[in-house]
Amino acid sequence: MKRLLISVAALLLATTAFSADPVPADLRETALSTFKPLPSTIPAVANNPITPDKIALGKALFFDPRMSASGVFSCNSCHNLATGGDDNLETSIGHGWQKGPRNAPTALNAVFNIAQFWDGRAEDLKAQAKGPVQAGVEMANTPTQVVATLKSMPQYVEWFKAAFLGEEDPVTFDNFAKAIEAFEATLITPAPFDAYLNGDDAAMTIEQKQGLALFIDKGCSSCHSGINVGGEGYYPFGLIEKPGADVLPENDKGRFAVTNTADDSYVFRAAPLRNVALTAPYFHSGKVWNLKQAVAIMGTAQLGEELNDEEVTLIVAFLNTLTGKMPEVSYPVLPAETDSTPRPSGEVVKN
Amino acid sequence: MKRLLISVAALLLATTAFSADPVPADLRETALSTFKPLPSTIPAVANNPITPDKIALGKALFFDPRMSASGVFSCNSCHNLATGGDDNLETSIGHGWQKGPRNAPTALNAVFNIAQFWDGRAEDLKAQAKGPVQAGVEMANTPTQVVATLKSMPQYVEWFKAAFLGEEDPVTFDNFAKAIEAFEATLITPAPFDAYLNGDDAAMTIEQKQGLALFIDKGCSSCHSGINVGGEGYYPFGLIEKPGADVLPENDKGRFAVTNTADDSYVFRAAPLRNVALTAPYFHSGKVWNLKQAVAIMGTAQLGEELNDEEVTLIVAFLNTLTGKMPEVSYPVLPAETDSTPRPSGEVVKN
Repeated sequence: MKRLLISVAALLLATTAFSADPVPADLRETALSTFKPLPSTIPAVANNPITPDKIALGKALFFDPRMSASGVFSCNSCHNLATGGDDNLETSIGHGWQKGPRNAPTALNAVFNIAQFWDGRAEDLKAQAKGPVQAGVEMANTPTQVVATLKSMPQYVEWFKAAFLGEEDPVTFDNFAKAIEAFEATLITPAPFDAYLNGDDAAMTIEQKQGLALFIDKGCSSCHSGINVGGEGYYPFGLIEKPGADVLPENDKGRFAVTNTADDSYVFRAAPLRNVALTAPYFHSGKVWNLKQAVAIMGTAQLGEELNDEEVTLIVAFLNTLTGKMPEVSYPVLPAETDSTPRPSGEVVKN
Repeated sequence: MKRLLISVAALLLATTAFSADPVPADLRETALSTFKPLPSTIPAVANNPITPDKIALGKALFFDPRMSASGVFSCNSCHNLATGGDDNLETSIGHGWQKGPRNAPTALNAVFNIAQFWDGRAEDLKAQAKGPVQAGVEMANTPTQVVATLKSMPQYVEWFKAAFLGEEDPVTFDNFAKAIEAFEATLITPAPFDAYLNGDDAAMTIEQKQGLALFIDKGCSSCHSGINVGGEGYYPFGLIEKPGADVLPENDKGRFAVTNTADDSYVFRAAPLRNVALTAPYFHSGKVWNLKQAVAIMGTAQLGEELNDEEVTLIVAFLNTLTGKMPEVSYPVLPAETDSTPRPSGEVVKN
């Protein structure tokens, strides 16, 4: 009798679990053919061996507002590690209170993107790091001035020597960028999704797994795939149906400006979706503040499908599993200026 | 013979030491009658018991750019803990790229000042913390908007509950300011000067001790005294001889604006000098970038004395002993916005 009761109970439990869990049995296997969990070690990057000294230097540079002409902005201003690696603004505000043209992407896990910027115009993070520091609407500085600023502070010169051992003149704009790349390569945020991919069934709820299954079935993962759930390829925004000009401004033709190829009109790098729940507002225009709304827009624009509210909710539940553990960063103590440090200037030079 | 040689050697050593070290024998005693070393514990502040939860909350608020209307500036923007607790600008750049009226003072050790701001208009750090967040040229926010922003993020509400246990409605602008005060009270930077005051003769070089003796003898310590080597009282800038309008702009009458008393024209709080070597440019106008030059100006303006180059050099050597060990701060991970979080706006409202 007792045995029978147990059997019945077990059957009931199994049935309940089955009816409440329409998660495909092979979900993890399917997912692993499309996505990859984050590694447990700092990834190697091209032509830039990563060392602890280089990481430490890169962190200092990343947080140093004196890398901007005004002394106001550091890399961290727009890629704030306290708020998901971005600035939560539609488009960034920079030198002279000018607005940048596109939403600032997160610096977190950016090392895994195929290329950098929304249009992929920088092949890696060391190329990317040279952009904002020179952009007139961002940090408005020059390589010459950056190097002069760094060389004016003996502590920085020491740090560059240690990070670029054996180089005769280590304080260069190239090495500035390489050090920042090294630091950024450490900004990796393992998430529940990684734990799930790595075999932990309890890392995601049933709803989150259902969302993952939908994300794959509906075709989201055709573009948003790989280690960063995106960031691996270029696709037209509005593949099926162009969103309105509020979301997809007509004057920004995306990758067309990089390749000068008509096919690349309104083509952008598929956004990497790790930590997407922390990085509103969305899209290159930064015009959409709500993640459910962003998912729904993707449905119509890219998939030609009106996702219903339950589907959107489940997909967002999955996207929440991409919110990772933030890297622990001790706030740096930066070298003090000297008499030869170039003075900050907030002046806006109009071309 | 051997004994004689030793005696002669000892005599020679003693003589040499004597002639190279005209440091008054009672220097430490004299110094201790004027200065005080930093305590080894977080100081108590009025009406604001300091707890670990309150410090942690205060740190988050201190680094949170969403406390500004634009989403660009945090407390740390102008009181950057990476660069001596200030921004190394003549005057800060704030909302709409507007310039603040006075040089940003360091937040480091500010808890020991008699009052806050150059004119002492805030009686303590919790009163001070409410200023910049509302100033139109700084963070341009309102208490209502700050509270709405905080209440929109459940994690912040939890943190306020933990920091202000038992309060029915803990998320208030007053408590925002109290938490920041609690965090700032931890920003203490013990320096070689403290070690010297505490009995360590080796903590300062002979030149630094000579500089300290001069600092006292010349009368600098009449105003720059106490635990912060300044920050304890109000004095006219240009007591003996007014510096030029470049250094002391005529339109800024200092404490006069606070007390409306003619005697307070051009009266300012004596600058606290801890970490002064890190906080160029100098004076409320931020017009002097070189510490030696600043000391020389103080000589003529406040003491009526042209300090010679050696004297200035020795005093600066002493001032360098006020550069302390920076507090170790782990960069915070801030709560994510929600749909109800007020949107940032860089708009400049003209009155």
